[in-house]
Amino acid sequence: MIKKYVFGTPFPTNAVVTEMETAKDKLPFLETDNQGTFNYALSENDIVYGLGEQIRGINKRGWQYVSWNYDNPNHHEDTRSLYGSHNFILIRGDVTFGAFFDYAGKMEFDIGYTRRDLMQIKAAKNDLVVYIITGENEKDIVKQFRKIIGRSYIPPFWAFGYGQSRWGYKTEQDIREVAKRYQAAGIPLDSIYLDIDYMERYKDFTVDTERFPNLKALAEDMKQQGIHLVPIIDAGVKIEKDYDVYEEGVQNNYFCKNAEGGDFVGAVWPGRVHFPDFLQPDARKWFGKKYAVLTEQGIDGFWNDMNEPAIFYTEDRLADTCAEIKKLTSGNMGIQEYFAFTGMVAGLNGNIGDYDKFYHNVDGKMVKHSEVHNLYGMNMTRSAFEALQEICPEKRTLFFSRSSYIGAHRYGGIWQGDNKSWWSHILQSMQQLPALNMAGFLFTGCDTGGFGCDTTEDLMLRWLQYSLFTPLFRNHAADGTREQELYRFNNVAAAGEMVKIRYSLIPYLYSEFLKAALHDEMMFRPLAFDFPEDAEAAQVEDQLFLGNELMIAPIYKQNAQGRYVYLPEEMMLVRMKSYDNYETEILPKGHHYVPVALDELVFFIRNQKAIPFAEPAESTAKTDLSTLRLLGYADASYELYTDNGVSPDPEDSLSVSTL
Amino acid sequence: MIKKYVFGTPFPTNAVVTEMETAKDKLPFLETDNQGTFNYALSENDIVYGLGEQIRGINKRGWQYVSWNYDNPNHHEDTRSLYGSHNFILIRGDVTFGAFFDYAGKMEFDIGYTRRDLMQIKAAKNDLVVYIITGENEKDIVKQFRKIIGRSYIPPFWAFGYGQSRWGYKTEQDIREVAKRYQAAGIPLDSIYLDIDYMERYKDFTVDTERFPNLKALAEDMKQQGIHLVPIIDAGVKIEKDYDVYEEGVQNNYFCKNAEGGDFVGAVWPGRVHFPDFLQPDARKWFGKKYAVLTEQGIDGFWNDMNEPAIFYTEDRLADTCAEIKKLTSGNMGIQEYFAFTGMVAGLNGNIGDYDKFYHNVDGKMVKHSEVHNLYGMNMTRSAFEALQEICPEKRTLFFSRSSYIGAHRYGGIWQGDNKSWWSHILQSMQQLPALNMAGFLFTGCDTGGFGCDTTEDLMLRWLQYSLFTPLFRNHAADGTREQELYRFNNVAAAGEMVKIRYSLIPYLYSEFLKAALHDEMMFRPLAFDFPEDAEAAQVEDQLFLGNELMIAPIYKQNAQGRYVYLPEEMMLVRMKSYDNYETEILPKGHHYVPVALDELVFFIRNQKAIPFAEPAESTAKTDLSTLRLLGYADASYELYTDNGVSPDPEDSLSVSTL
Repeated sequence: MIKKYVFGTPFPTNAVVTEMETAKDKLPFLETDNQGTFNYALSENDIVYGLGEQIRGINKRGWQYVSWNYDNPNHHEDTRSLYGSHNFILIRGDVTFGAFFDYAGKMEFDIGYTRRDLMQIKAAKNDLVVYIITGENEKDIVKQFRKIIGRSYIPPFWAFGYGQSRWGYKTEQDIREVAKRYQAAGIPLDSIYLDIDYMERYKDFTVDTERFPNLKALAEDMKQQGIHLVPIIDAGVKIEKDYDVYEEGVQNNYFCKNAEGGDFVGAVWPGRVHFPDFLQPDARKWFGKKYAVLTEQGIDGFWNDMNEPAIFYTEDRLADTCAEIKKLTSGNMGIQEYFAFTGMVAGLNGNIGDYDKFYHNVDGKMVKHSEVHNLYGMNMTRSAFEALQEICPEKRTLFFSRSSYIGAHRYGGIWQGDNKSWWSHILQSMQQLPALNMAGFLFTGCDTGGFGCDTTEDLMLRWLQYSLFTPLFRNHAADGTREQELYRFNNVAAAGEMVKIRYSLIPYLYSEFLKAALHDEMMFRPLAFDFPEDAEAAQVEDQLFLGNELMIAPIYKQNAQGRYVYLPEEMMLVRMKSYDNYETEILPKGHHYVPVALDELVFFIRNQKAIPFAEPAESTAKTDLSTLRLLGYADASYELYTDNGVSPDPEDSLSVSTL
Repeated sequence: MIKKYVFGTPFPTNAVVTEMETAKDKLPFLETDNQGTFNYALSENDIVYGLGEQIRGINKRGWQYVSWNYDNPNHHEDTRSLYGSHNFILIRGDVTFGAFFDYAGKMEFDIGYTRRDLMQIKAAKNDLVVYIITGENEKDIVKQFRKIIGRSYIPPFWAFGYGQSRWGYKTEQDIREVAKRYQAAGIPLDSIYLDIDYMERYKDFTVDTERFPNLKALAEDMKQQGIHLVPIIDAGVKIEKDYDVYEEGVQNNYFCKNAEGGDFVGAVWPGRVHFPDFLQPDARKWFGKKYAVLTEQGIDGFWNDMNEPAIFYTEDRLADTCAEIKKLTSGNMGIQEYFAFTGMVAGLNGNIGDYDKFYHNVDGKMVKHSEVHNLYGMNMTRSAFEALQEICPEKRTLFFSRSSYIGAHRYGGIWQGDNKSWWSHILQSMQQLPALNMAGFLFTGCDTGGFGCDTTEDLMLRWLQYSLFTPLFRNHAADGTREQELYRFNNVAAAGEMVKIRYSLIPYLYSEFLKAALHDEMMFRPLAFDFPEDAEAAQVEDQLFLGNELMIAPIYKQNAQGRYVYLPEEMMLVRMKSYDNYETEILPKGHHYVPVALDELVFFIRNQKAIPFAEPAESTAKTDLSTLRLLGYADASYELYTDNGVSPDPEDSLSVSTL
């Protein structure tokens, strides 16, 4: 059962799409002071799940998290905010219930941080809606919540292929070389991503024709090889005379305004920009239609970036900083002045005060951005999604975004942001998956190999062995870091085999994705969700169920030649060096130490289950379902969901068959 | 056997104290180009140990490490340099040998980073000594190496007590409150540390008499309660007219010089400073004698900090930066200019180019600092150690340093630097211990609870359960972070019990420390060192042998209620809530999952062994060896090393008895 409690005058977020009556009774479980604070006494064994894209474990106890969408490349143990705000939590313990705090501004979740035995949740203002969900069990609670927030975005089938990306592909030749070298290495590939370099001076919906003289021809050539080009679109619009997006935006008041009523100026990749006011339906429509500039050149996938929105600096803060620097750096700088100086400079980027300086036009009323901050990225993706339904009504377009709020899951996926080539970031990605699924985000994954910092061959191999299970499977890296296309490594064969295994698994992954999306279920679940009575399962932070048949337990430690695994039931261990070279072994319920060589994938098939397994194809376009066989327990069958992979509503072409 | 190979004209580092002939044969095992590069082909199962204070695992394979002493508060997975340079490695595999690269400048250790199958070691110049050590096994190789670098520093017995520190104790009252509240909580305490706040404007060997009106009386009062005050001394000397240390240093040319022959100026905590030229014997003597200013007030312990040396900025670089900022920030700052601007400011601190700007006077010859950089911190500690032997000849003084080089282990301990309140930093500290022991550093430990960032109660409890085994056991935190004295937490009782258990263990810890120091052995060892034939033991990265009787296997993951442990032999598990409330259980060789409650310490006593265990005392001064009993296997005995805890040479008062 879901009950809705309204506090103050909430700003409509569009997260919940089901009309619901407001409950008349007192808010259950949580104590509120009616000033935006909600308290809950934690018992020693309570577990708190949720919060979507956040740091730390599957069990969120022991830290203070802040919902404030933030361009934060530091996913550290002491980080409090990342790119998305997903204010859904699920408490499991003495009482088990879900709670969604539907609030567009800043929120704090102190989950046993200040006091181990207290959860304290604070909205900046007491203007929010709280939904309390009770149910039979954790899965049921999530399912009920997912139902009211609407069906998750389902990407085209090809989006399940492997993608190669790098900030730093500067020319058409760079792209062609990636395609060529993947082909030469015999590694399947479905997409190559275009980061900001393809644009003319970082202007959205432009292509630098010196470096990309004919994007349409390039896209066409690539598609011949089964490869989709996926360009980036950033939130900020460059201020440049005669640039149509800029001129139209100014003319129609589609940009966010400053306090004086002028167009607000921030600085991002293009230098000085205006930010489209995505909270205006007309601005959304206008901006969304611009994507046609690229779809007309054969593009059918996009990623939206910098849409927290990221602000490198604002001009007035920069001017103040420079003036202050001048003062501070004259004479013998003491230590206080030195830290003031360097702190001011470091504080330019993403300064929270800058978000008080601009406004949205909401039905003629000016709303301060900071009060609705967390909705910005979601509405950018909505802009694209809704426009593309008109521009390309016959097919699905791939979309994913960096910034999000619950509700954005209906319009696109998200990637997990600018991680690093750190071993711990394999685990961090994995620990977010169930929480993202609870919040509706099914199409997700992390930058395989790590975005920032330098990767190593062994890290990449282990990372592939994890990421090959995630819906979004993209190798992405930052400019200036070590090159990490799979053909760069000595053991390119081992890396290639892992990608091929991904292609063998795609029928299963896609089928389980469809089930999760169509039935409002979680594709990735903590072990405790399926074994609620098993106290040891509740402890497991580094294994997940994937769909109803698999359990994943990747290696995420350098030089490890094995790992511990807990099986809450008998399972079949699969040890795979390539799609056609593998061994299986039945392991009983309990704790196991499992050796895993560096070039070896290990996963588990659940008791009396089997998965469909295909011959790997060069790309998803060549996936041949007639090659499917069952891998797993001998007498098991599998219910396969398929569709044509493109129809906007998958149910129009859905096929369910038993293998 | 140890053989010495000389390349070029090495700068004498004083790391090795044994006279040795130069070998005439070709360097074994390693291929060199005679230009400072040494290559070694790594087999798949080779393990590389060593490098002392560095990031990543006990097995160092898979990263590139740089020996360049650096004030680096970011101990991240992609960090390349920390505060110390410990160029000893031990390769175990097809061939097993140790190698020490005795070089005072910058060195790189690419251990399977660029290529998984290649180790490449590079000295900036081909002027170094390489020692190659072969032996019966890993322990024997380490012992031989330790013998040639000289006996490790042995601190006074009281240094094994628990210490409380915080950057931010600003007054005498702050110190008295710490003592009072620890006493009120019934938690033993042996030391309170004075961070930079006790000084007058951060001037070495001064005391701010407004905030500390009578340090001598304070020290005396504290000592009455069994508490030692341990002040910090920084490397840089404030430029201030009439400040004696400054005036004398200038007059006698005891400071490092710039290229023009003037005293080099850097900026650190006090603002503009000169750096004592610790490579001059006279400067060392002069600076060392200054410690008497504090010993005369009853101080008998010191920590040396900022001695990489840390340089926040140099004036010319700051001037250049300000000029450049002026240019960059005029007009519409593009993204290139923005990153140039912020990058320049971020690059002021510890800029590697600044270390080319100053010189040491070595027997009248000017030697560029960058060529001998890694020796600076070691010689600062040497300065103090040697002077204090004259000032207080009758007793040991506690010393530890942040920066170090092999050789510094003879003069003092080191702490593991400015870590963070991160769960992963428990493990990081633990993984460094064996490598530090190989390099001679026995008296070491990390900032318990974490220095930077905010701790939580559960993190502190788990951290205590690890740190209570390390020789240096100090709770330390940075100004501005959450207060973490143990009495700040709700479950102060559980934290107090852990400290009391430490005091019960001190007789064992001190005894094993003495054995390790006197016999050139490792106090902390990877499991593989004692079980070289056990392939599973070689994999273990989160358990260590402590002395000859214990194995530690702490919990270092949030919300974990247990962990996996591998036993290479039968052992006795000890599960302890307090020194007098515990259970034991014999576990067979093999893999185990061990539940561990948050307020519970778990450790292992090795097969047929026992340890001495005392009644806990309020401070080490009250430790009563007559309360010792044996904890462990029934028929086991233990060889106890004790001394009077103060005599400069412990062998003068050494007592060995069998319990």
